[in-house]
Amino acid sequence: MAAYPARQPQQHEHAATAELLALRQALLTIVGPDGLLDAVDIAQRSAGAFRDDALQAGLLVRPRSTDEVAQVLRLCHAHGQSVVPQGGRTGLVHGSDARPDQLILSLERMNRIEQIDPLQRIAVVQAGVVLQALQDAVAEQDLFFPLDLGARGSATLGGNVATNAGGNRVIRYGMTRDLVLGVEAVLANGSVLSSLNRMIKNNAGYDLKQLFIGTEGGLGVVTRVVLRLLERPRSQNLALLAVDRFEQVIALLKYFDRALGGALSAFEVMWSDFYELVTRPPAKGSAPLPHGHGWYVLVESQGGDIARDGQVFQDVLAAALEDGLLADAVIAASERERTALWSLRDDVLQTNRHGTAYMFDVSLPVAEMERYVHDAHAALRARWPDVHLWTFGHLGDGNLHFAVRPPGTDQEARPEVEEILYRPLAAFGGSVSAEHGIGEEKRRYLDISRSAAEIAAMRVLKQALDPKGILNPGKVLADD
Amino acid sequence: MAAYPARQPQQHEHAATAELLALRQALLTIVGPDGLLDAVDIAQRSAGAFRDDALQAGLLVRPRSTDEVAQVLRLCHAHGQSVVPQGGRTGLVHGSDARPDQLILSLERMNRIEQIDPLQRIAVVQAGVVLQALQDAVAEQDLFFPLDLGARGSATLGGNVATNAGGNRVIRYGMTRDLVLGVEAVLANGSVLSSLNRMIKNNAGYDLKQLFIGTEGGLGVVTRVVLRLLERPRSQNLALLAVDRFEQVIALLKYFDRALGGALSAFEVMWSDFYELVTRPPAKGSAPLPHGHGWYVLVESQGGDIARDGQVFQDVLAAALEDGLLADAVIAASERERTALWSLRDDVLQTNRHGTAYMFDVSLPVAEMERYVHDAHAALRARWPDVHLWTFGHLGDGNLHFAVRPPGTDQEARPEVEEILYRPLAAFGGSVSAEHGIGEEKRRYLDISRSAAEIAAMRVLKQALDPKGILNPGKVLADD
Repeated sequence: MAAYPARQPQQHEHAATAELLALRQALLTIVGPDGLLDAVDIAQRSAGAFRDDALQAGLLVRPRSTDEVAQVLRLCHAHGQSVVPQGGRTGLVHGSDARPDQLILSLERMNRIEQIDPLQRIAVVQAGVVLQALQDAVAEQDLFFPLDLGARGSATLGGNVATNAGGNRVIRYGMTRDLVLGVEAVLANGSVLSSLNRMIKNNAGYDLKQLFIGTEGGLGVVTRVVLRLLERPRSQNLALLAVDRFEQVIALLKYFDRALGGALSAFEVMWSDFYELVTRPPAKGSAPLPHGHGWYVLVESQGGDIARDGQVFQDVLAAALEDGLLADAVIAASERERTALWSLRDDVLQTNRHGTAYMFDVSLPVAEMERYVHDAHAALRARWPDVHLWTFGHLGDGNLHFAVRPPGTDQEARPEVEEILYRPLAAFGGSVSAEHGIGEEKRRYLDISRSAAEIAAMRVLKQALDPKGILNPGKVLADD
Repeated sequence: MAAYPARQPQQHEHAATAELLALRQALLTIVGPDGLLDAVDIAQRSAGAFRDDALQAGLLVRPRSTDEVAQVLRLCHAHGQSVVPQGGRTGLVHGSDARPDQLILSLERMNRIEQIDPLQRIAVVQAGVVLQALQDAVAEQDLFFPLDLGARGSATLGGNVATNAGGNRVIRYGMTRDLVLGVEAVLANGSVLSSLNRMIKNNAGYDLKQLFIGTEGGLGVVTRVVLRLLERPRSQNLALLAVDRFEQVIALLKYFDRALGGALSAFEVMWSDFYELVTRPPAKGSAPLPHGHGWYVLVESQGGDIARDGQVFQDVLAAALEDGLLADAVIAASERERTALWSLRDDVLQTNRHGTAYMFDVSLPVAEMERYVHDAHAALRARWPDVHLWTFGHLGDGNLHFAVRPPGTDQEARPEVEEILYRPLAAFGGSVSAEHGIGEEKRRYLDISRSAAEIAAMRVLKQALDPKGILNPGKVLADD
């Protein structure tokens, strides 16, 4: 992922407010000298994996244990000090940005994989464990943690949980929420809520972990997580398809889902604009299928037997071709070819060719997509005749990404583009955020996807669990 | 399911309290004469599908719309009148029992399937739709709603959501929570919270529907639901295996999960005591595999192609036999044989042969199961040398059921049996309720599976959403 605008520099950067500095000594006592960074040191850090600006905050603490997190929050709660929890800084919606009067609570030193149980098929991890580290560790035990996304090398599991991360294989394995069995979180007042359930089924009262999944750190700080693991798939098959009519794209999704009987693990669609972009110079990718078709679809299956599943995949694809569901297809014949096909879809950085593009992440009913994309493009072109725009996404999940770049603009055109892309979603119950979350960036569009009653209910929860409003204020819900 | 104790008769049955009767006229105005039942009429109804006693309550209203539900709750909220939401009365933990001073709010007349969308693969239903009615309706459109349980003919989807129902195919498709995309609920004060999301991915703020899934009507009354549908599986394969050592049972679960590559749809285990019970007279079932093995496992796969999947299933089974993972096996060769094998597992009523047995529903790590079951049996036998007990369950989900009958007792021995079965669960984080919920029956054991902090957090939610405590009071959480 890419194309992430820097925040406007703040006046007071590199200096914590006096109120916050008054807590410095007490924080030092809790986390030790290694555990505390001042504003100047904080500014040495990048604001995020996809950003050019420096990190900002008055102070940053890096507790080493749940108990230290609890002490920090107890202190902050007593002083009404607001706290911004932070994971791997790979978020795309300014969900963990901080101000000079705010304290960043980074989980980076809580990065231990505490347990991997191959019989129960669970992992217990601290919140700061990097996604890829867990993927690798479980693979060594012939297991599989299916959450996967481009930022896997820096994103942390605590962040994945707090944002309910999605990614490439949601169609088969669900979002992060579906992979979390238990959560330990520290509430705003410093009390530890340990709800580290390890079972697939546990209907003993309210399922409290849901409070901390996808709530972007506003209801508690995730410190430990129990994750569900699966057996490692034996086979992986991948094809790129060219399709001429959007009805065929929809029909293909249903067809593969049915014919592969549970083995379909990705259904990614590139509109022709995106496919052109990533398969023509200066992009490094070449075109495995000729240009000129309307849509290009990556279809992947994962299964239990290499020879058998490869044959099934070929047969199913051949039948689809015979049924006239697609115009052309190529099957990856090796790991190298698989990587080459996926790298087209993943080469999103090409969208920055004309300057940093604005990235969007919406969801809507699949039957509405063609019209929505068409109308959105038309509206953008009406405003900026030479606008650059590219569309791709996890179509199997109803999730589209847009990269948009009105020529000759920098960030100032963004709000106008947002209006053009977000407003039409209301008509068919679409979402302004399929998987990236709301953060600070999308909070003013929350009412497109959520009713006043829903937003009021969110505030009721926020008030019940964080009455002083110290946890990540201004994210998801605007400050009062 | 079966073996459900009747409540002790109440003194005031068949008469509503004066406080409740004072609301009768206003309720009549909202729901009309057809929509209101008095205590005497209520007593004509059974308390539940698996019970011998009559339903009790001061009044029962049957609203026809969300708006009527909202009016009823607004009225009750104003008067501090407690309300017991009720679905198909198939629950097993006294989760919708009512007293003469309580009003039952039955969703039975909100039983319309509002939409089935084969492209988006969703269904929108009113809460009172019976599970089987939806299963049948979506099958007509070549789709599949995977939730399935013995009570399918009377259980309602609103009840399934409120209790986060599990069932036979959780290992593949998850619990009800995993199948719900959106929920409309009426809060205690009568405000309607419509969170009818239709997308697989929607991270636009807190996921409010989670508040109403598995909270047993304590935080709101579910009125409408958006459910996720799947393509209808084309093939179904089923085998019964005989296994001599419990390690082999665990190894088989991993083996099938891996080798079938996503197609495993059930892994049900019968301990030999249960298998003997359902395959010897007076039970109607005969034994497809000889007695004398320790465990009998039903393994099922669902896939996309009849011929292909049948062959794969046979090959995988043959390999397991060759690898020494099992002692004996039989594959169902027809729909009739499939039904016969499933009917063994489903013949739970046999456990009432010596008087109504007590039923249990616990979950625990699979690696602990053998010892837990062994110790529990030993403890029960030490107390009642001739105790009858049978064990079976959804082992793939870590979920065991027990049926226990101490001879010469009726209900009075139940608390002692509960202590014996529940207390040891605490040591390894097991749950006193895998799928049945807590209701009134298990609330005093909630602290075995949940910490004081967790129970306190549940009360915080209850207080935030239902400050007067009018919604299903005394269920899940004991009255203060």
